Amino acid sequence: MASTPFGDAILARADALARHSDVAPADLPAGAARPLTVTYLTEAHRACAADLAQWMRNDGFDEVAIDAVGNVVGVCRGTDPAAPRLLTGSHYDTVRNAGRYDGRLGIFVPMACVRELKRQGRRLPFDLEVVGFAEEEGQRFAATFIGSGALVGQFDPAWLALRDADGVTLDAALRAAGHDPVAIAALRRDPAAYLGFVEVHIEQGPVLARAGLPLGVVTAINGSVRFVGEMTGVACHAGTTPMGQRRDAATGVAELALFVEQRAAQVPLLVGTVGQMQVPDGSINVVPGRCRFSLDLRAPRDDLRDALVADVLAELAAIAARRGLAYTLQETMRASAAPSDPALQRRWERAVAATGVPVFHLPSGAGHDAMKLHEAMPQAMLFMRGDNDGISHNPLEAINAADTQRAVEAFLHFLDHLAGAPSP
Amino acid sequence: MASTPFGDAILARADALARHSDVAPADLPAGAARPLTVTYLTEAHRACAADLAQWMRNDGFDEVAIDAVGNVVGVCRGTDPAAPRLLTGSHYDTVRNAGRYDGRLGIFVPMACVRELKRQGRRLPFDLEVVGFAEEEGQRFAATFIGSGALVGQFDPAWLALRDADGVTLDAALRAAGHDPVAIAALRRDPAAYLGFVEVHIEQGPVLARAGLPLGVVTAINGSVRFVGEMTGVACHAGTTPMGQRRDAATGVAELALFVEQRAAQVPLLVGTVGQMQVPDGSINVVPGRCRFSLDLRAPRDDLRDALVADVLAELAAIAARRGLAYTLQETMRASAAPSDPALQRRWERAVAATGVPVFHLPSGAGHDAMKLHEAMPQAMLFMRGDNDGISHNPLEAINAADTQRAVEAFLHFLDHLAGAPSP
Repeated sequence: MASTPFGDAILARADALARHSDVAPADLPAGAARPLTVTYLTEAHRACAADLAQWMRNDGFDEVAIDAVGNVVGVCRGTDPAAPRLLTGSHYDTVRNAGRYDGRLGIFVPMACVRELKRQGRRLPFDLEVVGFAEEEGQRFAATFIGSGALVGQFDPAWLALRDADGVTLDAALRAAGHDPVAIAALRRDPAAYLGFVEVHIEQGPVLARAGLPLGVVTAINGSVRFVGEMTGVACHAGTTPMGQRRDAATGVAELALFVEQRAAQVPLLVGTVGQMQVPDGSINVVPGRCRFSLDLRAPRDDLRDALVADVLAELAAIAARRGLAYTLQETMRASAAPSDPALQRRWERAVAATGVPVFHLPSGAGHDAMKLHEAMPQAMLFMRGDNDGISHNPLEAINAADTQRAVEAFLHFLDHLAGAPSP
Repeated sequence: MASTPFGDAILARADALARHSDVAPADLPAGAARPLTVTYLTEAHRACAADLAQWMRNDGFDEVAIDAVGNVVGVCRGTDPAAPRLLTGSHYDTVRNAGRYDGRLGIFVPMACVRELKRQGRRLPFDLEVVGFAEEEGQRFAATFIGSGALVGQFDPAWLALRDADGVTLDAALRAAGHDPVAIAALRRDPAAYLGFVEVHIEQGPVLARAGLPLGVVTAINGSVRFVGEMTGVACHAGTTPMGQRRDAATGVAELALFVEQRAAQVPLLVGTVGQMQVPDGSINVVPGRCRFSLDLRAPRDDLRDALVADVLAELAAIAARRGLAYTLQETMRASAAPSDPALQRRWERAVAATGVPVFHLPSGAGHDAMKLHEAMPQAMLFMRGDNDGISHNPLEAINAADTQRAVEAFLHFLDHLAGAPSP
């Protein structure tokens, strides 16, 4: 078996960073595993930032700082200070009861590359800026992508009044962590100063695991639309109401759920989900008069997403008309697709091929910091296989040293190619 | 418009009986309508029994008594004390927030007939025994059909230890109402002493209302089976899990619900319902890993019911196998179909025809006291149309005087035919 020094080092760092958690061991039953939960600006979160900054210094970064929003920013200077920089990174906050690799892998991989460049005594022709984003998951406050959003000028000052579950405002939390909220606006990057943004991330899905491949080139971050709704028919006696005289809200939603499933499956890479489905106060012997449901529809291109949405909404209307049902529907989220920059995507393809594995393409079904940076500059992501069938947002989240080794090698190839020909 | 003296009198009695309710006016907000709730052995329940007994005496019944289980029993003696009796009646307890006619109509109609026979100075050749059953709805204690069950020897002494929501045992409630629980066993009737049991009841469904008919001859009380179950797949990310790699518990249940609907609709008079359908803690962006459901399957014959159940269970297994889902299923209730006695049913047909309306057949989807008596003697029911599309177990439950007049006339014809030829 080939040695995997980069992979081993990153797994060790992930374990070390996971010793910080918002959950105090004293709050757990004796013998219980300590969940990994690191939410924005907590003591554990600040300890993570301090570790990352220290490790960047150890790795030989030329500049290391924690910015006004809590991002850990390391710069590895290149030979030409005037050349556009390459931006990379991912987030170090976590969901509650998280895995150790979601987000963090995308900070550790470029850090390993900087360490290797320093070991070889090499300098790139351009600056490499690695950011550990402070907040992506939206766990503590009702805002997400606070870290990467700040870099594209999307920190909304209204967020400062948001309160966490304990009533602490975001403003107070920032100040308690030693940050100046007023300085956040100045974190906005000038797109002209950057070649683009790249991000390495665990897939958080089963595709690479089932394809038997360690790496995948992301073609787009899917656009999505979410709805919540309710169908309404007539609640009536399940024994005395003949089948032909019913207006059953639940079978209406059942038809919709199966349509969503079939319609999404017709077009590769589309996904459609009815994640919530509930007859409120349903009784065994009452024909459902109401049924709540949700819709989550995603596609790698906005036109594909919009066609999916249009077909689902038309089918919803048709089901309701055919069954004599009424319905409500409320859109709760809409995000545009973020297609990968073709030139950066091609560089990832060459980098993956250079490590000796087949080039495999897939879209990202989940949102990532790259989706935010997409609004300001070209971006492209590299996915790494998750073990345990890609399970994520779960303590069972797992990766292996060989795959991680391969991800670092691919990133080094990516930098080499870019150094050889930084213009697309 | 024809005059409707029987109908008018019965509507007035239903209104008068509805002045008794477990809900004290003092417990209601100012101006709120007082709900009709009469549960077993409460003060309101005993007041209803006293009214019924008094009204039976007023109507000319020869014997009137309240028995050990709270049934109000009136006997109108015939010319031949040795002839088998006709038994009829229905229940006077109610569900919570009930209508005024469920059960009670089936006591008032034969009472009106007895009053009319007395008015005409006629005597039947056989005794007519009218029972106001004390308990059918199972609202106060976890037992149902306590009243009619006692007449077929099905009062379970273990029920005496059941407690209501206030912790009062059935034993204590019976004794507080002046009843001797030990005497209940002796209420069992000797089937040889009876011609059979007939029951008039509101339909509690929309069939007669939509057919535009006041009366319907019941062919059977449907047999039923109930189940609760849960399908289990794999909860996973709605964005990152391709359609072909999901094991979605909710779409599995959706398929089942649509199969139940289609399969029941294929055979006239079958009904099948998924009344409960719920993804526990469902999230918009998570593919459902679990989905709970219920099944209520009914048919007028046990063989039809069993074929329906077999097909639904086979489809459940097939869906699970095809989708890679597991499931649990627990049977919570099974009741045999109670087909109407052909001879008594034919007598109802002739009685309905004699009132000048078309003979219309339908099964009873709900259970009734006749289902209990079925275990001891021939039975057949007559349904009367409910207004408001047959809504029941609801204050909107309604009937009209013309239909009620017709029901009394049909019952009188029934008695006449039976008096002319009491053997089938």
